[in-house]
Parts: sequence; C-alpha cells; structure tokens
Amino acid sequence: MLNSLTPERAAALRKALPADRFAEADAAQLQEPRGRYQGRAGLVARPRSTEEVADLVRAAAQARVPVIPYGGGTGLVGGQLTPDGPLPLVLSLDRMSAIRDVYPQENVLVAEAGAILADVQASAEKVRRLFPLSLASEGSARIGGLLATNAGGTGVLRYGNARDLCLGIEAVLPSGDIYHGLSRLRKDNTGYDLRHLMIGAEGTLGIITAASLKLFAQPSQMGTALLQVGSPMAALQLLALVRDQVGESVSAFELIHRQGFDFLAETMPQVRNPWAETPEWCVLVDLGLSGRVTPQAALERLFETAVAEGLVVDGMIAQSEAQRADFWSIRESIPEANRRIGSVSSHDISLPLSALADFIAEGGTRIAALGDFRINCFGHVGDGNLHYNVFPQPGKTRADHMDARDEIKKTVHDLVHEMDGSVSAEHGIGRLKVDDLERYGDPAKLMAMRAIKAALDPVGIMNPGAVLRV
Amino acid sequence: MLNSLTPERAAALRKALPADRFAEADAAQLQEPRGRYQGRAGLVARPRSTEEVADLVRAAAQARVPVIPYGGGTGLVGGQLTPDGPLPLVLSLDRMSAIRDVYPQENVLVAEAGAILADVQASAEKVRRLFPLSLASEGSARIGGLLATNAGGTGVLRYGNARDLCLGIEAVLPSGDIYHGLSRLRKDNTGYDLRHLMIGAEGTLGIITAASLKLFAQPSQMGTALLQVGSPMAALQLLALVRDQVGESVSAFELIHRQGFDFLAETMPQVRNPWAETPEWCVLVDLGLSGRVTPQAALERLFETAVAEGLVVDGMIAQSEAQRADFWSIRESIPEANRRIGSVSSHDISLPLSALADFIAEGGTRIAALGDFRINCFGHVGDGNLHYNVFPQPGKTRADHMDARDEIKKTVHDLVHEMDGSVSAEHGIGRLKVDDLERYGDPAKLMAMRAIKAALDPVGIMNPGAVLRV
Repeated sequence: MLNSLTPERAAALRKALPADRFAEADAAQLQEPRGRYQGRAGLVARPRSTEEVADLVRAAAQARVPVIPYGGGTGLVGGQLTPDGPLPLVLSLDRMSAIRDVYPQENVLVAEAGAILADVQASAEKVRRLFPLSLASEGSARIGGLLATNAGGTGVLRYGNARDLCLGIEAVLPSGDIYHGLSRLRKDNTGYDLRHLMIGAEGTLGIITAASLKLFAQPSQMGTALLQVGSPMAALQLLALVRDQVGESVSAFELIHRQGFDFLAETMPQVRNPWAETPEWCVLVDLGLSGRVTPQAALERLFETAVAEGLVVDGMIAQSEAQRADFWSIRESIPEANRRIGSVSSHDISLPLSALADFIAEGGTRIAALGDFRINCFGHVGDGNLHYNVFPQPGKTRADHMDARDEIKKTVHDLVHEMDGSVSAEHGIGRLKVDDLERYGDPAKLMAMRAIKAALDPVGIMNPGAVLRV
Repeated sequence: MLNSLTPERAAALRKALPADRFAEADAAQLQEPRGRYQGRAGLVARPRSTEEVADLVRAAAQARVPVIPYGGGTGLVGGQLTPDGPLPLVLSLDRMSAIRDVYPQENVLVAEAGAILADVQASAEKVRRLFPLSLASEGSARIGGLLATNAGGTGVLRYGNARDLCLGIEAVLPSGDIYHGLSRLRKDNTGYDLRHLMIGAEGTLGIITAASLKLFAQPSQMGTALLQVGSPMAALQLLALVRDQVGESVSAFELIHRQGFDFLAETMPQVRNPWAETPEWCVLVDLGLSGRVTPQAALERLFETAVAEGLVVDGMIAQSEAQRADFWSIRESIPEANRRIGSVSSHDISLPLSALADFIAEGGTRIAALGDFRINCFGHVGDGNLHYNVFPQPGKTRADHMDARDEIKKTVHDLVHEMDGSVSAEHGIGRLKVDDLERYGDPAKLMAMRAIKAALDPVGIMNPGAVLRV
C-alpha cells in the first residue's frame, strides 16, 4: 500500500535534500498538452544531481510515497502526472540539464535527463555532428522523458527511435540504487540489457538521470521535396524507389493529407500552402547526402523516374534553405492546427507497411459508419506510423461528439489490432492507454511485465498507474 | 532446488511429446568450439513447434529439471552446455528451421529459431534483399542463438548488432507461456520491451522460438579495399574520412595486424596474402553503394585523399568479385588460423573509440611484462570491438603457458575496465565470463538482473549457471 504525501510526510522528505531543492507545484506541471488529466502533487522536488535523485527515491520508498518523474511535460498519454491515488512527490529533472561530455571522435554525447532536446541538437551541431531525434516538441521535451517514452519523430526512418540513439543510461532504480550504465560502447554483451528495459518503461521501473547518446555525421547537403502522390500505396512505392536510388540517405518521408492543409488554412493562415491546388495526398521527402551527388540532382532524378512510373503526379523541389523551412513548417504546424480544431479522438498507430493502404481505406469506411467526421491522417509513413485523428465537421466542436469518442477509438484500435498494428506507435501507454494495453497486449507479455515491475519496484512507488494498472 | 534429469524423470518428460522428438545427445552437442567445457545431457529434445517447446518447458518446470537451449552450438563462451550441476534436458531448436514468411515490401522476414543464418541470408537474397548479420560461423549458427547472444560480426558498423536487426520475437517463457511478439512494426511503444530483454539473455529468461527480422535494400554495388595504415589511430581517422565521403555506406571496416597474416601463412597457406610486404596494420574496407557513384570510384577518391592526409601508406582496391572474395577470405580465415595456433588467452573486448589506440599500446606493454607472447589483435575496429588474442611464441604451445592464462586474462580485462570498455563485446557471458561480470559489472545492474531472473524464472530452470551464478 502506498501512502499519500501528507504535509507530515512531505516534511520528512524535505530532510533528504537542501531546502532549495523543493517547491510547490506550479500549475503547468500539473497539466498535460491535451488537457485530459489534472495532476496533483504533495511536493515538487528539483534535485541537482544523480545522488540527490537517489536520496529522494530512497526517502520516498521508505515513506511508501508515489514518485512521478517529470521531464518536459510534453507527453501525450498522461504519463507525467497522476490524477488519482495517493498524493505523489513530483520529481522534476529540470535542474539536471547539463551536457556532461561530448566526444566528437566517438560520435557520443552524454546528457543529463533534464537536457532539452533542442539543446542537445545544438551541442551536437557545435562539433559538426547530428543528433537526429527530431519532433514537434523539441524545444521543451527533455532527454529523460524522451528516452522513458522511447520517442519517435521524423528521423526514425533513417536513424531509429530514441532507444536506437542511446548507447547507455544512468538511472536511479526504485530501491534508490544508482545504475551506472553510461557506456560509450557500440558493442557490449555483458548481461541483460537494462538500458532497453528502462527505455520505454515510462518511469515505472526507475528514473533515467543521464544518457550517452549516439551522434552522426552531418549530411553535407540536405534537400527537400513536396511530391503529390495518387494514394498512400503510391507513397510507399515511392519510398521503395527513392531507397533504391539513394539507399539510407532518405532522412524523412512524411505523408500529408489535404485535410492537414485545410486545417492550417483555417487556424494558422500564416503557414504558406505552396500548392496551387492542394492534392489529396502528398509526401514530404528529405534527403541528406554526403557524397558528390547533390540532393537537388537526386531529387530531380527521383521526380523524373517517379513521374514516369506513375507514382508522382506533381511536385516541388526546395530551391533554398528558406523553401526547405517552409515545406517543413507545414508538417510541423499540423499538430498545432489539429489542436486548434480540436479532435474528437486521436490515434497514434502503426501498421505493417503492406497493411497501411488497406487500413486507411477501411478506417475511413468504419468511421463514416459512426457519423459525419473529418479525418486528418498524416505522419511517418515510412515507419508505418500514422497519426490518425478524427475531427468534427465545420460548425461542430469536439464537445458535440463526446458520446462517440470511445466508440471511435475502439473502432480504430480494433482495426489496427486486426491488422497486426500497434495502438501506440510512438507516444507510449501512459495512463491513457492502460486499457488498450490490457485489451490488445499479449497476455504472456503482460504477465512478464507485471513480474518485472514487482521484482524491481516491490512497493510500487515509481509512477504508479502508468503503463500498468495499480 | 533443481533436480537431475534421471532416467525416471526423463521417462516422465518423454510423455510431453511424441517419441520421435527425443534423442540421446550426440557428442557434438556436448562440445563447444574452444573445448573448454564438456557438456552433459539426461535427454535431448528436438521439438517441431513452439507449442511443443512450451509443453516441454512446462514439463521441465514441473519436474524442476534444468533446460539448456541449443541452437547451432557455435557460441564461444560455453552458454550452450553445462559441465556441472543437475543433469539437464538439452532442448535443440534444429527442427524448427522454417522461414515462416517473407515480406519483401516491408523488408521483413520471419524465421524460426533453428534457421541457419546462411539460409536466412539466402532467403533474403531470393527477394533481392539483404539480411546483413554476417559472421564466421554463419553456415551453422542459428537465429535463436544469434539473438540470445546478441551476435555481432562484420556488419555491425552499418547495420547494428543482432538486436538491432530484430523487430519482434516469439518466445517460450520459463513458465511455459508463449510470448507472441512477432511484430513487423518499426514503431511500437506498448509496454516494456521484452524483445530486448530476451535478446542477449542467453536463454536464461526463456527460449526464443522465432523472430521477425529486418531486411535491407541490397546495395547495388559493393567495393572492397585493403589499405595499409600507419597505426590503429590512423585507421580510426580513416574511418572518419570515409564516412565524411560516403556517409553510412561503409559496410565493414576491419583492422588486421600482421600477426594474422603470419598465422595464416603458418597454418593455412592456401589463403593468399596479396601484400608484397605485409604491413604491421591494415584495414579491410567494404563500401556498399546504391547511388550513381561506383564503389571503385569512391574507393579511389578515398585512397587519394587518405594518402594525401598521411593516413594510408599503400593499398589495393579489389578489381573483381573474385578479388573481393580473396580479401575477405583473409579476414574470415584468421579465427581458424588462431584456433590452429592455439591461443593462451582470447579476449572479445570493446573500447570507447578514443581509447582504442592507447589500449593497444598499453596492452602490449602489460602483456610483455608477463612473458614472451605473440598478440593477434584484429576485429571490428569501427565498433571499438577488438579480438585481442594472446599466443605462445613459435615452438611453444598453449599448454606451456597454462599457468599464465588467468593472469593474462585479468591483465587484459582490468585494462579494458579501466578504460571504460567491455570484457564481452559480442560473444556474451555464457559460463566463461560469469566471474568477469561479477567483477566488472555494475552492482545495481547485477542486482536488477538477479531480481528479473528470479521474477521470470523462480525455479531457475532456464540455462542455469549461464550469465548469473546459480
């Protein structure tokens, strides 16, 4: 049984660290971007070192008080706060934001958990390297949370998910013991891979305090094109074609539906739509090349072949850095436009690539059977990852459809599951998808997860209610 | 407490499956390549399906009998047999060798655990794809074991370790429950990553029965060069240079010391040495390109720049497939030549790249202080992974130095540990390195590993004595 962090218990916890390491929760820390949960905190701790995190966790374990690790607060599934249960300690990593070391020759950077993603990217750039994790919230998301949720983003196609970019971690286990695993090694087969277990565990098995991250050579030249395709299937064929032509140099391959442009026009007219007539489907392609072929030349060749093969109807190749930025601002503004429109139900799903086109067709049919909705389907199509979001028609709001939300979600998730897909491709389980995990997850996996959780966190203090039901 | 698989208990286990699924152990199954352990078996089972594996494991769990999972038997650290403790059931996956499915459009192949690596490579090739895991024992090593040990090899630099090539696994847990995790998804953030926990656990947390594997586009053209470098440091600078020039297209980058050529001349004179005068250090570079630049042109450009920068002294660019094969046969024959010479102590180590040259220098000094030995240092230098093997001088044999073996090993491993390296880069822990894991491993990690082992395998039937001491 866990205890609430009463004022008496808070007073006891405060003894673990100097007084200035504690604060009352500010309102922002108790909210999450989609406004579905209202958090609570008995106390907020802002430790300055791994040892301080360990001291706090030990004190919390002794008091049997829940600990909610808090990074940038950008998570979309409610993993960063708890709306119910015993009042927790919120443990913010924001004061542990140092870039501890950079090893340009090794292509390694060691960052503390509180380092903001954009700062890590900038530190890599300073030594002419690339840290390729890239997503809309990179200005506020922090490394610890990005790893705890195994974040995705637009660079996954080429460089992998957050877990693929991490060579090692330092973490405080629920016992308060510090796992010193900041390896800079590319190969290390010495025992169970705790790193990969902690990554994606969303703070339920411990708190990541630092990570050694992989850096990459900066592609010497980047090129971007926006290409009209006839269908999602054509988009996938185009991806195969471009990979045949330039191998791994495809840095991003994002599918955009016309609905996204319409939402931008409606809510963010400052984002320029470069199409004279917006196509139903288009893809944003990024090439990062290091050889002697320029991305422009490679994209022109791609365009010619793809038009000849009937995969691409029309398109634009960015002629300047400014135009590249314009193209990307479309993709990056769509989530904000979605937020302004207000979705009835949002889905972060992935599918086997060969099921993707069928899913989009069948999904549209099944949603239409539930009512009159607009669907904005976009995302990292090369990874099979779609953000499949359902919106009210103009003149209606999400509030008008709240009764349909659960049915829509179940319809989408059932279809994804039928097609061997995932109901959480890159956002994680958090609190929002605990039911989904129980419904769709493999029973043996769930059993093993519960056994691991009980073994490493027998009192259950670490982020209780996230991922696994308490 | 575990029970020995006595004839009576064997009779009980035989009831779990049809009679033809059992056999007596053949001698080969009870040996390992380095001849350091002699295995034992109460019975050998050769199940034909995942359900049969599950039935066996349940029966073994009930009888509290140890289970040793057996793949290709090529492991180098004794993980595939047990020389002591209660007599085990050896569970061979050799009859589960099907390629279950190939999805060329998705770049996915699903193989059973008993599939031989070369067969998986060939199945990928049939659909014009590449499965890039590649190592000397690929003609007999099986997928289950390769994943259980997170095998490395020559393709890691570009494509990653075995774990990086696996999208999902099916496994039988120590309880006999089947984990159905054969995902074909590139992104799936639904709960703890059991796949990565089972990969590298060397059969101590369950038995991998099948895996969905990543395929890649075949580079349209391969090119190979053998380049003389002045030092290991120059080799690393050369790697940085070639990556600047061709990005991720470097498929392999192997360091070879003159000692390797000398051993080949001594034991395998049929392997041709293309050098007129063998250099102290050379590297074997493989480029796989898909663009319009030919590998020959890229290698010529590399050679010119590298000579101009003083990184490369001399070299040869393969002019034909036959010459490529010749160059590679040097690298691939060195382990066999080593075996014929007979090492006093072999070390599969990795180091942070910036420590690598210092390690080679300091290692030579410390070994020399212990006696008069020959060192063959070679390997996947781009990954920081060296095979650092210590041999007797001509006229002596390993038997003459058995008293020095432990001291040599400790000297090498201590130095590796001082330099933040790993004492098992790609071979795993098995039974050979349990002491090393205890000596050099992070205490919190070991504690967590033991807790996880106890949680998933409370009776301790799965490969007891491997990785963790019983």
